[in-house]
This record gives sequence, C-alpha cells and structure tokens, in this order.
Amino acid sequence: MAKSPEYKYPIVAYGYAARDTSGTLSPFTFSRRVTGEKDVRFKVLYCGICHSDIHFVKNDWGITTYPVIPGHEIVGVVTEIGSKVQKFNIGDKVGVGYFVGSCRSCESCVNDLEQYCTKQVRTICSLNSDGTYTCGGYSDHMVSDEHFVLHWPDNLPLHSGAPLLCAGITSYSPLKYYGLNKPGKKVGVVGLGGVGHVAVKMAKAFGIEVTVFSTSPVKKQEAIVGLKADHFINSNDSEQMMAAMGTLDGIIDTVSANHAIEQLLNLLKPQGKLIVVGVPDNSLEVPPLSLVSEGKIVAGSSTGGLKEIQEMLDFAAKHGVTADIEIIPIDYVNTAMDRMLKSDVRYRFVIDVSNSMRDFLRS
Amino acid sequence: MAKSPEYKYPIVAYGYAARDTSGTLSPFTFSRRVTGEKDVRFKVLYCGICHSDIHFVKNDWGITTYPVIPGHEIVGVVTEIGSKVQKFNIGDKVGVGYFVGSCRSCESCVNDLEQYCTKQVRTICSLNSDGTYTCGGYSDHMVSDEHFVLHWPDNLPLHSGAPLLCAGITSYSPLKYYGLNKPGKKVGVVGLGGVGHVAVKMAKAFGIEVTVFSTSPVKKQEAIVGLKADHFINSNDSEQMMAAMGTLDGIIDTVSANHAIEQLLNLLKPQGKLIVVGVPDNSLEVPPLSLVSEGKIVAGSSTGGLKEIQEMLDFAAKHGVTADIEIIPIDYVNTAMDRMLKSDVRYRFVIDVSNSMRDFLRS
Repeated sequence: MAKSPEYKYPIVAYGYAARDTSGTLSPFTFSRRVTGEKDVRFKVLYCGICHSDIHFVKNDWGITTYPVIPGHEIVGVVTEIGSKVQKFNIGDKVGVGYFVGSCRSCESCVNDLEQYCTKQVRTICSLNSDGTYTCGGYSDHMVSDEHFVLHWPDNLPLHSGAPLLCAGITSYSPLKYYGLNKPGKKVGVVGLGGVGHVAVKMAKAFGIEVTVFSTSPVKKQEAIVGLKADHFINSNDSEQMMAAMGTLDGIIDTVSANHAIEQLLNLLKPQGKLIVVGVPDNSLEVPPLSLVSEGKIVAGSSTGGLKEIQEMLDFAAKHGVTADIEIIPIDYVNTAMDRMLKSDVRYRFVIDVSNSMRDFLRS
Repeated sequence: MAKSPEYKYPIVAYGYAARDTSGTLSPFTFSRRVTGEKDVRFKVLYCGICHSDIHFVKNDWGITTYPVIPGHEIVGVVTEIGSKVQKFNIGDKVGVGYFVGSCRSCESCVNDLEQYCTKQVRTICSLNSDGTYTCGGYSDHMVSDEHFVLHWPDNLPLHSGAPLLCAGITSYSPLKYYGLNKPGKKVGVVGLGGVGHVAVKMAKAFGIEVTVFSTSPVKKQEAIVGLKADHFINSNDSEQMMAAMGTLDGIIDTVSANHAIEQLLNLLKPQGKLIVVGVPDNSLEVPPLSLVSEGKIVAGSSTGGLKEIQEMLDFAAKHGVTADIEIIPIDYVNTAMDRMLKSDVRYRFVIDVSNSMRDFLRS
C-alpha cells in the first residue's frame, strides 16, 4: 500500500497545499527523499507566485494531483549535498524553476533544451520515478538533482530575482532565439503583468526599443516612467494602432485572455515575429494572407533549458533586471491569488518562505 | 484622356487577356514602353500557369484590373538592351517572376528582400509610375528594368524551369530561411500540386528526408517513385498520422483549401516550423498550447528577393530540379485553367508562348 505523503520519505517537510479544486491552500506536512548522490538539498528562502500556480491549484488544466504544493520560482540556500555533487557547496545560493528532471539523453536534452523533453519532470504535480508526485516551492525545503539547480548570482537579489526563474526566462528566451535582442530592433510587449513587465525590463537591458501595448491606459505612466519603456499604446485606440502598423520587428504577447491576433500581426514589419507566451483558451485566429504576403511568424515560447536559464540569471544580475514585487508571508497566499485574478498586484507576489514558514512551524 | 492599351506606348504587343470576371482569356493587342536606359526587352519563350493566375483573371482577390494579361513564370531571350544595362546582352536567356519593380531604397529592398517592398510592382495588375497597369507573360514580349530580370542558367531547361520562378522559389526560400535545408533534417510537404511537387524535389536536392502528406492515396506512387520522396502519408488516415507525431523539423504546407492546422503542428518536433505557402480563405485555427509548450512556429512565405531567386535558379540547374510539366499552346489556356481547378495536371502547365503566339499572329 502506498504510504501517505508524510511518511513516504524519511525527511519530514512542511508546506502549503491545496487539497481540492477550490484551490485554497493550507498548511501541510509531507516528506522528501534523502539526499541522493547527485542531489542538492536546500532551504527555501523565497518563492514567486506565478499565474500558472493558480491554474494548478484549481486543476484548470486537468493535470493536477492533490494535494498539490505549488511554486516553481524558488530561491534557496544549500544545506546538504550528495557525495557526487560537483557544482554546489553547502551555503550556496541556488534557484529552481519549472522543472526538476528530464531524460538527459533525447535530442532536446542533448541540445540543452530540457524544457522540451517528453520525459520532463515538472517541479509540481509530475510523477517521480518512484511513483510519487513532485511538490513545489511553497515549502520549507527542496531536494533536486544538481543538473536542475541554478547558481544564484551574487549580486542578484534573492526576493525580486525569484520570478525571473519563470517570468524572466519566458521573455529572455524568445527575445534571444528570434534575434530580437540586437540593438536597433523594435519590440512590442502586449500586456503588462507578471511576465510583461519583466519582458520590458529584459528588452531594455538588451538595448532595444520597446513599445508597451495595453488595454489599460492607466498603465502608461508605469510603463514609461516605472519600466522605462520607450512608447505606450492603448490597444483599444484604433488610431494609435494604425499609426504603429508595420513598425515592429517582434512582439512578446503575454496575454492569456482570448484576443485578436490579426491586429498584432499588422504591427509587424515584413518577417516580423509574434511570439505568444500566454495561453488563451481559444485557438488563435491567424489570417493566412498576413503571414504569407509578408513572411511573418506566429510562434509560441515557454521556459528555457538549464543552460539558458543560467545565462539569463547572469545577464539579469549584470544588467540589474529584477521583478517588481510585493513580498508576502505564506499565510497570505490565498489572498494573493485572489488579488492576482483581479490584476491587483504590481507585478509579482513573492512569498518570504523561510521567515513565514517558521511562524507556521511554531504554531 | 488616357490612351487605350493598344496605343499608350509606341511598341505594339500581343497577348491573351481576360476582360471580365468570367476569367476567359482571348487574344489581345496592347502596347509596351520603349526600351529605357536600364531596361531589358525580351521575347517570351515559355510561361508557366500558376494557380494565382486563375485568381487574377477571376478577380478573386479584388485587385484585378481588366483587361488582365496574367503570367509571372516567364522565360525568354533578350532582343534589345538599354544604354546603361550592365548585366545582360542580346541573345541572353532570361527569366522574370512575380514582380518587376520595387522602391530599391527601403529596408526590405536594401536587404535583398524586394518581395516585401511596400512599393513593389507586381508583374501583373500593378500600377506603373506612368499610370498604366503591368501586363504579364501570356504575351509575345516583355520589357523590364534589368534589376528584376534573372540570368537563366545554361543547363536549366527553359520550359520545365519556368515554373521555378514562382513554385521553385516558394519552396526554396522557406527551406533555407528556416534552416530546413541541412542534411539530417526531416521535412513534410503537405499537398502534391504545382508548388508541392517542386517542394519535394527541392528538399531532396538539399539532401533532406521528405514525407509527402496528401488526402489522395493514389499519389503515393507518384510521390515515392516519381518524385523520390522518402515517405508518403495519407492525411486522412489517423493511424498513419499518429505514428508520425513529433517526427518532423518542418512542414511546407501548400494547401489552399481550408484545412486543420492542429494535426500538422502535432507532426512537428519541439521548435518545429509549419510554413504555410497556400492561402486558404478562412483564418488558420492555431491552438496556442501546442505552440507554447513546444516552441513551435506557424509562418508564412511567398516568393523571394531577386538575389535569392537567382541563387535558387543556379541551385536548380546544378541539381537538376525542374517542374513536371505539360506544354500547351496559348489557345489552350482556358481549358488548362479548367483542368487545374480539377487538379487534372501533373503538375504544371507551361505555355509554349513563342510558337503558339506565332499562330495567333498569323491568324
């Protein structure tokens, strides 16, 4: 008979879990494996709340296993290493992102594109080889094979850097892959939320010209003054949209709500790239003529491989790119998720796990 | 008052034109300009019939000006050159494709991407600077600025090479642009018509593995034996389609009828490229998750710039790539178009213009 989560492994762990599709999180005691030869064990310091955490706790994608402990923007400090660990020492600051395992041998893995491995083990709700499900960073500590652990750059803040492990790589990777990171390029960012605001900062760090598109005119000030975007366009203003037609080399479209793609394609120059990083419920309606006549691209992008995530963290540290965050204790997480659903956050919640989890353990 | 086409210019020309949306072509006398300083005048030898010629004669796209003389896969022999022509001599074999003019100074033109110039002058139904409309290759002769004229490689057949000026570059350009032309790559060609069959030959000339997808199982023999494709899959056979999931680096989708995109995306590996070169009436329905989760691309592509078209012709000559054609006299053109609409051609009609136009002139 399968053991309950508390006793499956020898090491007791504490976290916040949702038990059903209500998505409400509450204190949860479970267990984690002993530190294997190649494993790094670390105390969780901070964990960002990504929008997909909300999808997971509510089982919006039908892939959740309960109880679910979310969190895949995790920063911590190493407390124990396995006998064959080569990259880390006790006391190192580390990060873990969207996945903690892959096959290491397929075409994707061999090419440092572990994010596309079909045997990828996500950080949450993914099946381990021993039949248990992975538990994420809303917990006191983590254990992971060192291959899937990132070195945290010395001068990158732990709290405001945490969201880079998801929101950061989501914008960095397509900007680079599609050659939009070169000076002189003009890029649009559609939607100014958790991913969008980091995309603006990444693009500016690459030295490129950035136009923010949003349906909320109130965000103009935030975009221009706060995030140093070069231009702001109200996507609902057809005159502004017309004037911007054919001006952009690429667009990072972060919007998850259903929205029209054609007007975004019209903003692109010939051979321009529209990169979708949000996942609306409906299919994108792409007029073929606007693709064919000007050689345009509609592409998708999610996270990156380990090598690229490390490169992104180092780039962010060098250029001072962090997320704008609101730090919260872990017992605020349900309220935080409610506020996120109302877009009431500028721009990312980050849980101060180590300090607030201590309170939970004392109670 | 505008002069009629016969007398607008000093040089009388003869062609086949459609006068209304019936699209029926009949003999037509018009005129062409005198040979300018940089112009090349050439006698038309062969002209391919592209599917878009049918759209033009019927005004399917709403951009036709009547009378319309179609034809943009034109091969001929130079009869006169302007005083400042540098690239051509009388007697040279030449080709002209989809366009005969562009601004020569915009970002696209400067980067040898004249196909995206917003001031592009198409070979048919496009406004010349003098207020007349361009007339295509279903005519006895052409005159064009030398920049838009291609050198015809010595060992490339004139008749079966003509369709390369449209169908050839339409497949060559995306295979190269998307890096699908490298040995080891696996590419699918969807639809086996005028463009599709040339795409198979181009891909094989690049040394890559080609799978043909068609809803006509009878085409298996033609694909494998005739065109040397490596594999054939009946797109309506869900078992075959399932087995091919995740195996392709790219797909050239030549189908102009409305069709499902999702199953084609499923055939691609991570970061795979679906390149649409046909233009269905309806929008493509692209499920965002299949783009995002595996970093896939849906792109469009049409023709190429002059430099690339020349490169393609030289490549085709070197590797023996030509179209499979049925040569017809020009008075067969209406029947040919009817047969094309029934897919009753293997795979391209080419008009023997110089020989059959002679009959017209005699009559």
